[in-house]
Amino acid sequence: MTDRRVHLNAFDMTCVGHQSPGLWRHPDDESHRFDDIRYWTGLAKLLERGRFDSLFIADVLGVYDVYKGGPETALRESTQVPVGDPLLAVSAMGAVTEHLGFGVTVSLTYEQPYSFARKLATLDHYTNGRVGWNVVTSYLESAARNLGLSTQISHDERYELGEEFMEVVYKLWEGSWEDDAVVRDAEAGVFTDPAKVHPIEHHGRFFDVPGIGLTAPSPQRTPVIFQAGASPRGIAFAARHGEAVFNTATRPEVMRPWVDRLRAAAAEAGRDPRSIKVFTLVTIITAATDEEARAKYEDYAQHVSYDGALNLYGGWSGLDLSSYPPDEPLEYAETEAVRSAVEAFSTADPDRKWTPRDIANWVGIGGMGAVVVGSPTTVADELQRWMEVGDVDGFNCAYAITPGTFEDIVEFVVPELQRRGVYPTEYEGETLRETIYGKGQVHVRDDHPAAAHKLNRERV
Amino acid sequence: MTDRRVHLNAFDMTCVGHQSPGLWRHPDDESHRFDDIRYWTGLAKLLERGRFDSLFIADVLGVYDVYKGGPETALRESTQVPVGDPLLAVSAMGAVTEHLGFGVTVSLTYEQPYSFARKLATLDHYTNGRVGWNVVTSYLESAARNLGLSTQISHDERYELGEEFMEVVYKLWEGSWEDDAVVRDAEAGVFTDPAKVHPIEHHGRFFDVPGIGLTAPSPQRTPVIFQAGASPRGIAFAARHGEAVFNTATRPEVMRPWVDRLRAAAAEAGRDPRSIKVFTLVTIITAATDEEARAKYEDYAQHVSYDGALNLYGGWSGLDLSSYPPDEPLEYAETEAVRSAVEAFSTADPDRKWTPRDIANWVGIGGMGAVVVGSPTTVADELQRWMEVGDVDGFNCAYAITPGTFEDIVEFVVPELQRRGVYPTEYEGETLRETIYGKGQVHVRDDHPAAAHKLNRERV
Repeated sequence: MTDRRVHLNAFDMTCVGHQSPGLWRHPDDESHRFDDIRYWTGLAKLLERGRFDSLFIADVLGVYDVYKGGPETALRESTQVPVGDPLLAVSAMGAVTEHLGFGVTVSLTYEQPYSFARKLATLDHYTNGRVGWNVVTSYLESAARNLGLSTQISHDERYELGEEFMEVVYKLWEGSWEDDAVVRDAEAGVFTDPAKVHPIEHHGRFFDVPGIGLTAPSPQRTPVIFQAGASPRGIAFAARHGEAVFNTATRPEVMRPWVDRLRAAAAEAGRDPRSIKVFTLVTIITAATDEEARAKYEDYAQHVSYDGALNLYGGWSGLDLSSYPPDEPLEYAETEAVRSAVEAFSTADPDRKWTPRDIANWVGIGGMGAVVVGSPTTVADELQRWMEVGDVDGFNCAYAITPGTFEDIVEFVVPELQRRGVYPTEYEGETLRETIYGKGQVHVRDDHPAAAHKLNRERV
Repeated sequence: MTDRRVHLNAFDMTCVGHQSPGLWRHPDDESHRFDDIRYWTGLAKLLERGRFDSLFIADVLGVYDVYKGGPETALRESTQVPVGDPLLAVSAMGAVTEHLGFGVTVSLTYEQPYSFARKLATLDHYTNGRVGWNVVTSYLESAARNLGLSTQISHDERYELGEEFMEVVYKLWEGSWEDDAVVRDAEAGVFTDPAKVHPIEHHGRFFDVPGIGLTAPSPQRTPVIFQAGASPRGIAFAARHGEAVFNTATRPEVMRPWVDRLRAAAAEAGRDPRSIKVFTLVTIITAATDEEARAKYEDYAQHVSYDGALNLYGGWSGLDLSSYPPDEPLEYAETEAVRSAVEAFSTADPDRKWTPRDIANWVGIGGMGAVVVGSPTTVADELQRWMEVGDVDGFNCAYAITPGTFEDIVEFVVPELQRRGVYPTEYEGETLRETIYGKGQVHVRDDHPAAAHKLNRERV
């Protein structure tokens, strides 16, 4: 079995029952407290105690309105609506922790790179270098409609715009202010040496940014780049920019070819393929014994909402299963969309005849990802198997209930992983990038595309 | 003398030496810690101890590059660059306080109302209703150039766009979710009652926002609207939308006609003219005695930067004074711009022959506002005179040094105002709007334009 170090992120969102529709009805779930800042500061302290790399905060800027053709189900079931802004709890969480990272999801489709670069630099300052950015190009039609785009930008054009957006923010973070630009010399009356701050003079197809960056270099400069992209263009983007890359599969054997493709694409892009840390979505349900964990799972499973699960799934897949009989297998369904849906699930169990209810039950705890149920040894074994078979580096841990699921991981799984010597007992460095790459790697690696904009290199 | 209650805001910005260029060189100034979250949490606790209404956080999204035609002076003197995002420290400050409000400056020119409404609602949730929004339509050409506008939108068009932006966010905050939309009924499996959430169906000249708001009602719903607008269109906008309106004048006699116009315009717009709380910019330099305060002022004045002050002034006025002899009076200067600059200052002292150095010295401590120097009784007298003569309701307190200036106000001035019975010893309510309007006034007043979008009213 692999002895590679296990990385854990917590996966949450400024909403109710993030990946577990219906579980808000469980008496121990506190996800309805998502708009109470104490929920977030408490969670951050818990995760830091458990030596998690980061809290990964998902986001959507729209409503899941495919299922039954409207927002009613999303509202009733609170499937990711109401939803808050993902950046705004970070300073409060950062102020009560010292090491935990914060990966925030922001769609570049609705941002200007000039002001966006300032936002993340500000957070990186406030957290002493513990910010990651999950780069998203939005996928919800309901978001586009409300944000000034009469229809969504085409998929390929989104990635072109995305590439240019990344170039601009890299220039602002890496290529505008030299390391020693801020001198704060009271005698000479010089706060910043103007000779060491450079206009980026970006003039592109989508963006014109001639000026200097507005922020002095933050600890990490470029935040740790998180990425999730499963399409061919998505893999290329992730292979080029991602430092922590996130994907979802039902089993490690299914994940593996994708990871191989990603690492090969990274190598082609001139990067060390192992410098991409791959995180897979998993929901861990654990207790002292397998039996207790199984009982916990059964309890949670009873709270899954059929409509809520299919509503989430409709938003992700574009497929409205509301008119299909819940208990009839979908395998012979007539449309391409249904066939491809069934294929995705049949990777989990090819022998099963998948029904809408099966899909709802799968999605209902932890979304499309794997659910690992068992005692600390069972869970640790399974996580290590995922790493070995799937060649992943770690896990984005969704919750069934929050903070209960995370408390259980910290109480049961973390000590077992530490006992096996595959999980840290202390954080290695100060910044999120060091937590992911090891002490000393505060800035982007030299094989990362942001490094091309480092001033030191250009000026040597 | 007036016995009206005095309101105090602290005026700061995510930058060095906000309104006091050069004072960062003073050994007691800590404004260089603006990117340390502990600066902000410490400041928030201090201000709450002093019963300040709010911390008002200014912002610019560009660089002051009029003076000497480039950003060099702004960098060297750190006149509002480097500059961070104004929203991101709020949750940390909110988490360590219970009553202090936070007025954040955001230019609507570079925001989409749909996502922006979510940001402020999220902060209003996190702070339990203590958020204000200083509505700005940006003025820096250097911002426009970097944010996708090849040139700035015309002044009048900005206000039209601003009016529509306000309409959209009011609809999202007030008119989408009914008060009792979130039921969280686990038995019935209903988190939000879909019948009580309404798409806003906004279709306007600048914005199309057909959908529902993304956030459940926050404590205040609409944040307290701060506004500063001195131009004729600006007064109309402030009179219509502002709840706390901010202006700057050298003397209360000069401020008064503007306040009269503002209140008259509010009345014309159907609002109680006294429901607009007018704040004027003031920098208070105080100590136990007049003599000590004067000595403190003299010490600060020695740290003012000539170039820094004229750089700030250039950004505000568009006037580059770098080529004018520092000590020659400007009064007979040939251009309209210079004449109007001198006129502005001559309101402070019509008999003086204003030179660039005089302007720099004026601007160098506390920007264009008044500086009040003296013992607690002297300062309290002068603040009360401002309220009586200028008909203002309170003060946006800039700092000469931070947090020193605020510490002095809390130590010396607040107790004197409390002794006079014109300043609260406890906060009156829970939310920022209650702090400004009195206990119970959590939501916008019925004569405020946001109230037109209240659902209860429409549905009665």
